Amino acid sequence: QGTRDHPPAQAALRDRLLSAVVSCFKRHGAAAIDTPVLELRETLMGKYGEDTKLIYELQDQGGELLALRYDLTVPFARYLAMNKVTNMKRYHVAKVYRRDNPATTRGRYREFYQCDFDIAGQFDPMIPDAECLKIVHEILSDLQLGDFVIKVNDRRILNGVFAVCGVPESKFIPACSTVDKLDKMPWEEVRSEMVGEKGLSPEAADRIGEYVQLHGGLDLIERLLQDPKLSQNKLAKEGLGDMKLLFEYLTLFGITGKISFDLSLARGLDYYTGVIFEAVLLQQENEHVEEPVSVGSVAGGGRYDGLVGMFDPKGRKVPCVGVSIGIERIFSILEQRLEASGEKLRTTETQVLVATPQKHLLAARLKLISELWDAGIKAEMLYKKDPKLLKQLQYCEDTGIPLAAIVGEQELANGVVKLRDVATREEVRI
Amino acid sequence: QGTRDHPPAQAALRDRLLSAVVSCFKRHGAAAIDTPVLELRETLMGKYGEDTKLIYELQDQGGELLALRYDLTVPFARYLAMNKVTNMKRYHVAKVYRRDNPATTRGRYREFYQCDFDIAGQFDPMIPDAECLKIVHEILSDLQLGDFVIKVNDRRILNGVFAVCGVPESKFIPACSTVDKLDKMPWEEVRSEMVGEKGLSPEAADRIGEYVQLHGGLDLIERLLQDPKLSQNKLAKEGLGDMKLLFEYLTLFGITGKISFDLSLARGLDYYTGVIFEAVLLQQENEHVEEPVSVGSVAGGGRYDGLVGMFDPKGRKVPCVGVSIGIERIFSILEQRLEASGEKLRTTETQVLVATPQKHLLAARLKLISELWDAGIKAEMLYKKDPKLLKQLQYCEDTGIPLAAIVGEQELANGVVKLRDVATREEVRI
Repeated sequence: QGTRDHPPAQAALRDRLLSAVVSCFKRHGAAAIDTPVLELRETLMGKYGEDTKLIYELQDQGGELLALRYDLTVPFARYLAMNKVTNMKRYHVAKVYRRDNPATTRGRYREFYQCDFDIAGQFDPMIPDAECLKIVHEILSDLQLGDFVIKVNDRRILNGVFAVCGVPESKFIPACSTVDKLDKMPWEEVRSEMVGEKGLSPEAADRIGEYVQLHGGLDLIERLLQDPKLSQNKLAKEGLGDMKLLFEYLTLFGITGKISFDLSLARGLDYYTGVIFEAVLLQQENEHVEEPVSVGSVAGGGRYDGLVGMFDPKGRKVPCVGVSIGIERIFSILEQRLEASGEKLRTTETQVLVATPQKHLLAARLKLISELWDAGIKAEMLYKKDPKLLKQLQYCEDTGIPLAAIVGEQELANGVVKLRDVATREEVRI
Repeated sequence: QGTRDHPPAQAALRDRLLSAVVSCFKRHGAAAIDTPVLELRETLMGKYGEDTKLIYELQDQGGELLALRYDLTVPFARYLAMNKVTNMKRYHVAKVYRRDNPATTRGRYREFYQCDFDIAGQFDPMIPDAECLKIVHEILSDLQLGDFVIKVNDRRILNGVFAVCGVPESKFIPACSTVDKLDKMPWEEVRSEMVGEKGLSPEAADRIGEYVQLHGGLDLIERLLQDPKLSQNKLAKEGLGDMKLLFEYLTLFGITGKISFDLSLARGLDYYTGVIFEAVLLQQENEHVEEPVSVGSVAGGGRYDGLVGMFDPKGRKVPCVGVSIGIERIFSILEQRLEASGEKLRTTETQVLVATPQKHLLAARLKLISELWDAGIKAEMLYKKDPKLLKQLQYCEDTGIPLAAIVGEQELANGVVKLRDVATREEVRI
């Protein structure tokens, strides 16, 4: 349940999509690493908040207690700490596992690919963070998925907001995970969850509401830097200062048109400590709809400066920032688009079919195809002793093989091969 | 235990190796498929004989009982049956899991990659089988692993041998798995296991010994086809007839020089029904050693005509033949070779580092690198506001970046960039 086989047409589309993402990661100088699908259970515990219950555990068959990785970020942090690596730019494309309720039509599975790019190391502020946003912008533009917006916020700003609204520090995390629901439910419902389930005072909730419904650009940052309450809060001030710097760098990258500083963005995971971001696709422009509607998140990430330290015996921290591309949702979109277009994706790369027009020529086919393979040419033949020529040409048409190399008695006698263009039916002897 | 992280240098080497294997599979017209790492437990049970105990099971957390795949062959058969596919040439490169005793120095892990190529469908005999052997020959030649031999046998010939030696049919499988140990222990020990543990008569064991110590080529096949006892056995006769045909095709492929018809080859798995084969590397020729010594199996496979039927409700069979490349052992060899050579593999593909020679030029770097990325050029910069030029050039040398694009105050004023070849120190203005 919640997993799937990829038949050749899907596998080919996925390969194409993954290589577009990987080539962007390589363009930014990232190296590949690989970690096991299996992690020690204790490595994963206490990293995912409420979602810890979604971790797949292996049966105790003797030896270590194991679980399947839930994402690629925690294994990366474990890798850095274990190998005492303090400086690294890496990408990792691999499957992760979550015992969630699958919603396969919306591209939500229990086994799915993640494509992560992360920068670890102590650097000058916001330079790596800006690069992560540039990467999201490049990938979503390259894939031509339509209009999108990248929402940006900072955990320090959110925590500052909570503080100045009178939320006690012990309730920052629950308040944060409630704010995170603002993209799925209206403010009224979020407010009542805050007051009801999370035990915030109605006044605090109302004050939070005034902040988290704000979104904008540099102008909003400037306004909040002047906000009488927020500007007094150390965390918020730091976050806003860095946000301003981030916007400066994003302006130099020329991508602020797609960036929205959005105070409602909270992100579910516990480990974020600074900038957070999430990219959402906007529905195709439509005359009947006034404002574009979000059709869901396709990338997300942020800064997590404390995670590596959790795996280091001495708690040594390695600041990190990273992005994860939501490849499954993008794959669903591309698949639907391909289906709608009626275009057929080739599932093989075969360049030439080795064919014979008469019987008793299997030996000739085997000799010729062997020569082609040895020359690095992608070649196939039918696995029949005496296939009909029509069947052989039909196979080319069905599978998109552009050329047929035909060797008959005449060609054998003359030491030539007849090369036929399957589409135009033109033939040359070579 | 028995798993490992791949740091960038290893990941880069592995990528190179896997793409060599995949490009061979594509050259032979195979399409990619992907199946989940998780399979239903019942799918895997009863397929691996004694090795079933090595399957990793997931904890029962509610829902289906799951296990991690043990190989890629059983999932492929399950895929064919589930989707009623009767004709397919596919490859699959993915990780599999075995709770075995790890021997990491010899490249034996609990999580490891398999690279499989299989041909499913009802075809004329031995044509797909010959192609599998051609593939093994191409890959081992391409990778320049040194001398190798591909041992070939047929389960029908082995069963025929057991029958004419007086082994009851119920003991064919245990006899087979004992013969399989002949590559690791001398005949005397194999014989005593047959008589002791497996309960064969000493006379039967001696008669088997005469056959399974034979190996050769077409001449041996011809001799066994004339063997008074074996030629009377229907299975053996079929197997030997097909073996002769196989050698005919391999002669046309020009690869019989590396093929040995070897009656001691048995292969461990239950599901083989016809041709079986295994490639072993031979130790480098050495004046002190008379005959080359085997250093272990690097590829194996065979025909399994009954496996798909086990997953079909009506038991409909789909004949299959396939090969699995032992990528981990090959990886160990290449890694050791690389280490010995002292050659350093680049882990990134960055073409140019964007650098500045003076302070206060971060904006210029950000603008230039953004242009380069947008033009598809692989570019990096240091994440410092004011890095020293020497540090920037040092980074190029450390990571193998061939070019530095330097933009200083002078260049900014003139609207040019100074492009420096890191190795030769030559500079041009562009």
